[in-house]
Amino acid sequence: MTLPIEHDFTITEAALRPFAKILVVGATGAVGREVLSILAHIGVPADSVLAVGSERSAGSTLPYGTWSLDVSTLDRSMFVARGLALLCADAATAHQARDLARGTGCLLIDNSSAFRMADDVPLCVPEVNPEVLSRHSGLVANPNCSTILLVTALAPLRCAFGIDEIVVSTYQAVSGKGLPAIQELREQTERALRGEDLAPRVFHEPCAFNVFSHDSDIDLETGCNGEEQKILDETRRIFAAPQLRVSPTCMRVPVLRAHTESVRVTLTRAATESEVRSALHAARGLRIVDDRERNAFPTPQKAAGQDLVLVGRIRRDPGSDVQPGGAARTWCLLLCGDQLRKGAATNALQIAVLCARAL
Amino acid sequence: MTLPIEHDFTITEAALRPFAKILVVGATGAVGREVLSILAHIGVPADSVLAVGSERSAGSTLPYGTWSLDVSTLDRSMFVARGLALLCADAATAHQARDLARGTGCLLIDNSSAFRMADDVPLCVPEVNPEVLSRHSGLVANPNCSTILLVTALAPLRCAFGIDEIVVSTYQAVSGKGLPAIQELREQTERALRGEDLAPRVFHEPCAFNVFSHDSDIDLETGCNGEEQKILDETRRIFAAPQLRVSPTCMRVPVLRAHTESVRVTLTRAATESEVRSALHAARGLRIVDDRERNAFPTPQKAAGQDLVLVGRIRRDPGSDVQPGGAARTWCLLLCGDQLRKGAATNALQIAVLCARAL
Repeated sequence: MTLPIEHDFTITEAALRPFAKILVVGATGAVGREVLSILAHIGVPADSVLAVGSERSAGSTLPYGTWSLDVSTLDRSMFVARGLALLCADAATAHQARDLARGTGCLLIDNSSAFRMADDVPLCVPEVNPEVLSRHSGLVANPNCSTILLVTALAPLRCAFGIDEIVVSTYQAVSGKGLPAIQELREQTERALRGEDLAPRVFHEPCAFNVFSHDSDIDLETGCNGEEQKILDETRRIFAAPQLRVSPTCMRVPVLRAHTESVRVTLTRAATESEVRSALHAARGLRIVDDRERNAFPTPQKAAGQDLVLVGRIRRDPGSDVQPGGAARTWCLLLCGDQLRKGAATNALQIAVLCARAL
Repeated sequence: MTLPIEHDFTITEAALRPFAKILVVGATGAVGREVLSILAHIGVPADSVLAVGSERSAGSTLPYGTWSLDVSTLDRSMFVARGLALLCADAATAHQARDLARGTGCLLIDNSSAFRMADDVPLCVPEVNPEVLSRHSGLVANPNCSTILLVTALAPLRCAFGIDEIVVSTYQAVSGKGLPAIQELREQTERALRGEDLAPRVFHEPCAFNVFSHDSDIDLETGCNGEEQKILDETRRIFAAPQLRVSPTCMRVPVLRAHTESVRVTLTRAATESEVRSALHAARGLRIVDDRERNAFPTPQKAAGQDLVLVGRIRRDPGSDVQPGGAARTWCLLLCGDQLRKGAATNALQIAVLCARAL
């Protein structure tokens, strides 16, 4: 694997212009709204964009820059040749969209987990494995948010030194669970400050002033939850390393937006701190935030609204065997990224930009 | 090392009765108040307890069950033969108290970091290494809160299988920084909900709806912060394993009380899941909270106000090499504990109970 630097996947109106129409399916959700916000921001005309929602939200309108978009329900006629459909809904909707779009020549980029492990569907993070897009057949999968942030930060280390093992603990914002979760955290926090009952609805545990194991389903046999399994499976697939040792623990924290991950990575070849920093510094998609003197490191508040993954606390694992010259194989780092931006909407639109080249 | 089960260190009024007087130094702080609350709860008479504070708080009163205690400033006359001084203040106050108490026959148990690595001062967690108390000379150190919770949970695995490596990421409550930090989190959260400025004062980063690297000083050379160095040094000392590989990352989360730790532990000898669970189940100081079907695991809210360390998410590391029969060397678990109780006040009083036996 070599780190691809030749591809430009900057999201601009011009780069998306080859698409005849842009469908945003699940437009009223947290990721869908983020996609619309980016499209409006870069100046994609409102009449090029179609907002699609559930029957419940059909007929409502969504803000689009200074304009607004009517929300329609999904219809086969929306899938057109050279069209782009950004699927920001659940797995069932993704399957439905794929069936409706079949043979239309419309490109689907799916944010759900429906197709991420399908052999014939590329799973892509543009900074990491853009080459997989050369063999798509009208459908590309966007990885899980935590996975995107993790592989974006680790890809340069993998390219430079190889990776034998990743141990990662996440601090995930509630917005990964959508808009109702954001509302629940705000309301529950207000009640908690008044000393009132916490009454969880969206989550299985109170989220205000609390930390809890991720809300995805748990495999009763292995004890892994769905989020951990996604990080394991998708990291292996994106790195094309089916045996890579990945040890994830996924947790929710009372943060509205942006995920944090504490990572301990074991390299194949020992590296010095300056070599590790150089590799990260040269990489795309990252911003180093690592000021030991001022204790200034990545936080979800700094990452919110950003397209870059913030990386810091870069340090040799104190348990690492150190070679003469200071090289070591195990390193720690901390990363934060906006899971609605690079973890979802931004990554999907970057994939779209790369695919637009082939149109 | 064998797991000591013969010692009873239950905190009762009778167990503490051998002490002629109990001094609580730093009584107005978060840990000091917790000590007073436990002493009042078990029925230690108010006239056996002396609350000591800074000059600023001298003359004020503190609640003590249905009574109240006057707060005095530290004075040599307070250290009496067969007395107990629970030092719940900073390292400077601990040094001052040790100088004042010299030769008086008063036992000091210090919560600060002042003496934790001193060869002639035992560092003790009663469930883990009570034997070190046999050779104290009037001063015992209470370990760092995160360390106490970690070694309490891991000691049974170390006894049964040996431990080669610990990778731990913490989710630490703000109350570890004292009462002003609790106030800051509450006030800042109220302001954040109103859309107002976050204005950090106690911490270097906003704490409301945020996650940040621990606020302790950072070693500019190694990049480790003070909390991480404490976990590393103290775990090695308590486990009497000076070369043990420990890889800590310490973070603050917007939680008022109780710390969470995500742990990946590498055992020396492979164990099956049922062996790992049996070892944890038989151990003192722990409560297993591990219901995969209901997604019910330890949370700081469940741990707050509890003396036990909650342990759950017990599962084989998915990256682990598995032997026939399911035995593996690397395991994941999650723990939560009240850092003001077992992480500070409770552990100190348990040490006092064990020392009272020798009076």
